[in-house]
Amino acid sequence: MRAGAARLGVEAMRERTCALVVIGNEILSGKVQDSNAWFAATELRKAGVALMRVVTIPDEIPTIAGEVAYCSKNFDFVLTSGGVGPTHDDVTMDGVAAAFNRMLIVHPVLEALIRKHFAGSVNKAGLKMATVPEGVILHEAGDIRFPTVQIENVYVLPGIPQLFEAKLAALITRFKTDPYYLRIIYTSATEGLIAEHLDACMIEFPALMLGSYPRIGSPEYRVKLTLESKDAEYLERAFRFLVGLLPADAVVKTE
Amino acid sequence: MRAGAARLGVEAMRERTCALVVIGNEILSGKVQDSNAWFAATELRKAGVALMRVVTIPDEIPTIAGEVAYCSKNFDFVLTSGGVGPTHDDVTMDGVAAAFNRMLIVHPVLEALIRKHFAGSVNKAGLKMATVPEGVILHEAGDIRFPTVQIENVYVLPGIPQLFEAKLAALITRFKTDPYYLRIIYTSATEGLIAEHLDACMIEFPALMLGSYPRIGSPEYRVKLTLESKDAEYLERAFRFLVGLLPADAVVKTE
Repeated sequence: MRAGAARLGVEAMRERTCALVVIGNEILSGKVQDSNAWFAATELRKAGVALMRVVTIPDEIPTIAGEVAYCSKNFDFVLTSGGVGPTHDDVTMDGVAAAFNRMLIVHPVLEALIRKHFAGSVNKAGLKMATVPEGVILHEAGDIRFPTVQIENVYVLPGIPQLFEAKLAALITRFKTDPYYLRIIYTSATEGLIAEHLDACMIEFPALMLGSYPRIGSPEYRVKLTLESKDAEYLERAFRFLVGLLPADAVVKTE
Repeated sequence: MRAGAARLGVEAMRERTCALVVIGNEILSGKVQDSNAWFAATELRKAGVALMRVVTIPDEIPTIAGEVAYCSKNFDFVLTSGGVGPTHDDVTMDGVAAAFNRMLIVHPVLEALIRKHFAGSVNKAGLKMATVPEGVILHEAGDIRFPTVQIENVYVLPGIPQLFEAKLAALITRFKTDPYYLRIIYTSATEGLIAEHLDACMIEFPALMLGSYPRIGSPEYRVKLTLESKDAEYLERAFRFLVGLLPADAVVKTE
């Protein structure tokens, strides 16, 4: 779709891509249901950012390093979630450092924050919380005392949902770009009956982001069609074109 | 952890690994909250399977092909979720075919099922539902009329949660292996205060799967420690060792 957009000359709209790397055995083993991916997906979309990849991986340094390096190269920026506490299974900083071939150091600003928090007495676990790759940038994180750590285009966020959400909310204005515009068509027809009209719409409007989502057991509609573009006028033309193709009695409502 | 297990000679326990590839722009763009990853994580764990990777990617053939090929090579089996309907954005079969350099064909068994369902009259969209890579294996899917398609070690499942869950439930006995045993310790201490005991436990029991999960705002406990192994006796020894290290008044309850 993005290639199509460029061909059509709507490339003036700024496209900004992101990946999210969720780190945590607890999620892969079904002990904890992740909610950070859903939060990030909705917030990034509101900010006009294209989330292109979400990957959940174990607490393993080489796996984290490989995935972070891949995402850093292929997307404009990367968020990580989890693995930043003081215990043995918190190895995200080790993985991110390895991704960029950087040393881990005790950061003086973070160390001072931790010493203040613990009134001077800091054990090995406390110092681990201040240990980050060399050359990071620190960002204030709203109400959260501990700043957010940035290395290259990677932002390292904690996995606890309250903290992840607060820290992402504090960062989101940095990522904001041209918005997506969205129209929705709810139809009572099945996907099999409207597929040809969707194909025709994509031929006419190749840069359109068009999604078709069937729903089982809803009395209200059978398929929800989402039409999106960063070009509001292009979107309206595509919307009118598709509504014109669909059998009139199949359109339940539009938004 | 798994390398540690092998070193200690508990490699007699069968380890079986899996990856889940979730395909869908609707999830990445925050329109739909995925629940299939959580369902798969819990069901696979109960079956003794190690889910090692969950990745959510767009409806793009080369991306699907690359990710499926990677997961197929690196894990014992792979599940995909989504992208198997009759519309333009359903390209999972194309991606899986490309992953294994296979042609797409109209499968006679699937075509017959679809012709039966539509009482003989089948359009292009209907035939798309019968189009799969050459050489697939079909599995009965319980109450779901449409069989599950297997290519190499990849099982292609629909994204609609009711269908994904029913199809995975019908497959799960194929994947079942030695179970995980789990003990839990809830503590009132912070992670910073118990990190050294967790380190000591991992030195003594390197094959243990030990997780430490802080919780904010719970009056009941501060950190939940999960101890797991496929060796029940090893797990009990590690559990007793760690409980012995923790300050007695820090242990709120165990399970």
